Amino acid sequence: MLAPPALPPMPAAGSALSRLQQHLHQTRLLGSISSALYFDQNTVMPAAGAAWRGEQLALLAGQLHERQSSPAYAELVMAAEADLDADATPEQRSNLRLLRLELERQRALDPALVAALARAQSRGNAVWQDARRRNDFGTFAPALEELLRLRRIQASQLARAEPVERSPWEVLAQPFEPDISKARLDALFAPLKAELPGLLDRVAASDSPPPAAADLPEALQEQLCSELLDSWGYNPSHCQRARSAHPFSCTVGPADFRITTRVVPGQPFSAFLATAHEWGHSLYEQGLPRGDDHWFPWPLGEATSMGVHESQSLFWECRVTRSRAFADRWHPRFCSALGSDPWGGAPVFWRSLNPLRPGLIRVEADELSYCLHIVLRYELELALLEHDLPVAELPEQWNNRMEALLGLRPPSDSDGCLQDIHWAEGLLGYFPSYALGHLISAQLSERFEHDHGPIQTHVAAGDEAHLQSWLASTVWPLGRSVNSEQLVERVTGRPLSAEPFLVYLRAKVEALLCQ
Amino acid sequence: MLAPPALPPMPAAGSALSRLQQHLHQTRLLGSISSALYFDQNTVMPAAGAAWRGEQLALLAGQLHERQSSPAYAELVMAAEADLDADATPEQRSNLRLLRLELERQRALDPALVAALARAQSRGNAVWQDARRRNDFGTFAPALEELLRLRRIQASQLARAEPVERSPWEVLAQPFEPDISKARLDALFAPLKAELPGLLDRVAASDSPPPAAADLPEALQEQLCSELLDSWGYNPSHCQRARSAHPFSCTVGPADFRITTRVVPGQPFSAFLATAHEWGHSLYEQGLPRGDDHWFPWPLGEATSMGVHESQSLFWECRVTRSRAFADRWHPRFCSALGSDPWGGAPVFWRSLNPLRPGLIRVEADELSYCLHIVLRYELELALLEHDLPVAELPEQWNNRMEALLGLRPPSDSDGCLQDIHWAEGLLGYFPSYALGHLISAQLSERFEHDHGPIQTHVAAGDEAHLQSWLASTVWPLGRSVNSEQLVERVTGRPLSAEPFLVYLRAKVEALLCQ
Repeated sequence: MLAPPALPPMPAAGSALSRLQQHLHQTRLLGSISSALYFDQNTVMPAAGAAWRGEQLALLAGQLHERQSSPAYAELVMAAEADLDADATPEQRSNLRLLRLELERQRALDPALVAALARAQSRGNAVWQDARRRNDFGTFAPALEELLRLRRIQASQLARAEPVERSPWEVLAQPFEPDISKARLDALFAPLKAELPGLLDRVAASDSPPPAAADLPEALQEQLCSELLDSWGYNPSHCQRARSAHPFSCTVGPADFRITTRVVPGQPFSAFLATAHEWGHSLYEQGLPRGDDHWFPWPLGEATSMGVHESQSLFWECRVTRSRAFADRWHPRFCSALGSDPWGGAPVFWRSLNPLRPGLIRVEADELSYCLHIVLRYELELALLEHDLPVAELPEQWNNRMEALLGLRPPSDSDGCLQDIHWAEGLLGYFPSYALGHLISAQLSERFEHDHGPIQTHVAAGDEAHLQSWLASTVWPLGRSVNSEQLVERVTGRPLSAEPFLVYLRAKVEALLCQ
Repeated sequence: MLAPPALPPMPAAGSALSRLQQHLHQTRLLGSISSALYFDQNTVMPAAGAAWRGEQLALLAGQLHERQSSPAYAELVMAAEADLDADATPEQRSNLRLLRLELERQRALDPALVAALARAQSRGNAVWQDARRRNDFGTFAPALEELLRLRRIQASQLARAEPVERSPWEVLAQPFEPDISKARLDALFAPLKAELPGLLDRVAASDSPPPAAADLPEALQEQLCSELLDSWGYNPSHCQRARSAHPFSCTVGPADFRITTRVVPGQPFSAFLATAHEWGHSLYEQGLPRGDDHWFPWPLGEATSMGVHESQSLFWECRVTRSRAFADRWHPRFCSALGSDPWGGAPVFWRSLNPLRPGLIRVEADELSYCLHIVLRYELELALLEHDLPVAELPEQWNNRMEALLGLRPPSDSDGCLQDIHWAEGLLGYFPSYALGHLISAQLSERFEHDHGPIQTHVAAGDEAHLQSWLASTVWPLGRSVNSEQLVERVTGRPLSAEPFLVYLRAKVEALLCQ
């Protein structure tokens, strides 16, 4: 657990701000109960408990929605706004501005639409599960049509609450990436589209053999994950670990964090890298500017965007754990745990941590091709939502673009446009955050190295604490006081761009091919 | 999971009964969320999460209390009562009678007293933790005085809602053991007080050596617990297992059950016996007459008393797992798992499962002395609550009675009257249920054996399924339609008495000493 940064003073008891805080505190309590149930559901709940759990979560969701949109809550916000005087701190103003924006968004929505969307999402998920299993896009298409129709209506309702003019896709992306625009994404993604296919070709053309396929027993993977976290200052009295089908990180209370991993047979580094990744998410959550429980419920104490969140997990997964220096330090530990060296030395061990081979599946993609998977989805979302691409043409469009970007054509829609859950639940505007995470992580790393020397030098010395304390003093305390791009500019002194990420990839490809 | 018994028809949609059911369903959802949080808290929650978890639980408790005592709820009950016509089923009448009784109890309580009790319980627990650690009864005494004072007031308020005249202790015991009276307990406990000390003396006088002290590695204990549950039809899709500091069983939803155990160093059978015990609790919960979710929230679908609950756990722990036939069947499995036989044969293995040696601590007590621990506490509760025993005299009284009953004098209050958490939280009226569980379990077993032959014969044949299906057809479907004593009379054809338990113990002592 990290020392909390300095925080604005607590509002006076009985004031409008204090009454608002009590309301937010209760809201956060309810929300965190949902998080605890989510964690339970994905780690230990017996399968037969699913229906009842669904009802429990729906009950809490209803209570949460009520607390976040009721006239009583709107009055609390208004009273706190009216009470703001010249002495109000910038943090208090920011908190109220963010609360007002969220309140207006909640109130802009027609409750009938919210209910219709919830039904369509639930139906979409069920239909998609079945369609993906049977590789039958046709049965999923009508559900997707309906979700797109409802999302367009939702965007037009929400647009009225937006402080500036935004396109439908931009409106839907706001909850994940505040202030994002298509123009910025196009500018950030253009260099990736231009350069990444060439880098992939370069790797494909090399005669570098695939790394040795060594598997690790489950207990040993567990042990190495524990050693990794221990070496990074993991404290079990604040964070607990568990197993789940898909790795995730969640926050259950201001001092209660959880991360999960899974062991995948045949993938000896999957759990290890996922542990690094989820720990990065959790460190960010643990370092957000809460001070104590008292500040837990305010907007400023929250993560600013999914992109920044992803930048933190990718920092620990890619900058640290996939680095050459890390491989050199940990290769002996892996060998000693295993009692042999199936990699025949640290260089191949490092290459095994960094497979660079394009594939069809996003969640299995490497650092080089990952962002191209995102560009594909981003452009198709725009086409579907804003440019009238018929849903029936989605599979063909997906396959053509995949071939153009990665040189691969999916043999089935299950390995193509049916692979992700996002659209099945009508989730639009989310994918770009994954790519932004790579760009932000690279640019933050570049700044760190400019000021403190190569990350690899610190990793080689086992001094990851230095990296952590830098993030803890520069990134985490900003909370939601800035958006992603402001955060990057504040920390690095330059606007966000794709160049640091490309510089990093060029060097990494070079180093890996030179082995 | 067991097949549900036949159930009364669902109330017609829109009827008063149906509206009441919707209310109860939501109440049960909230209550089961608390259960999920309780499970999480005791199995995986990081220590630092405790304060926030306390707030989450308090929020849910407040919502639950509101739902169970509000005028709106009272009106729903009244409307359903008014709607009952000649066609109403006996089950509907029973459900409404039980709901009315609980509602009147809730409404009899002064909210200020409820709040004062909650504070006193929380303070009592904290002070007790410290007093027990430091063996300092003096610091705990004022907290206990205050709890007794508040409980007396609570009893006098609740007495007004009771359908019959009851003493303060009897009023407080009702939630755990409906319709229990001091006169019945005195009659049931008298034979135990008269005979158990003599049986203990007989064991002490024998020259039977203490059983071999074999410890079992943790992983092996885990494996044997799994084998045990598998042999009893454990289904992980309905029930999940976890570790906790103290073993418990809990129900999170109509098809979501959990049991926990712990491995205690130096006690090779602790986890194994606890697994049998908690599985017995869970089987009862799984077999209660719910039918489907629809019936989950009604009173009739609940366990009827703590005593009956305990009878079910003790059935599997004592009648089955501690039996000679079980020891004969499982001794080879333990030896094969361990790779050796530290017991030198099944007879000593069986004796190791059945230590008969009086000790100071209730939770470590054997079958012979356990009920005497309860008698001691029951009589002291009466003295404190109804007969003006000064709190300051509790330690001396405890030690004197312990010496008279078990021939042991505690060297410290931590091993004496400070050992249990119950009084520290003002919990009075609960202890007798533990002893009733032994008596009920014995009388149910006697009836089974009368109809189906010795339990040992079924256990020797590995036919525990026969035992389970008997409980599933006789005990579990009764839910709360009968109280403990009615249940025993219904199933065994005779009023509850201590004799079957004493018959069982006499035979067991004889068999163990004859080894």
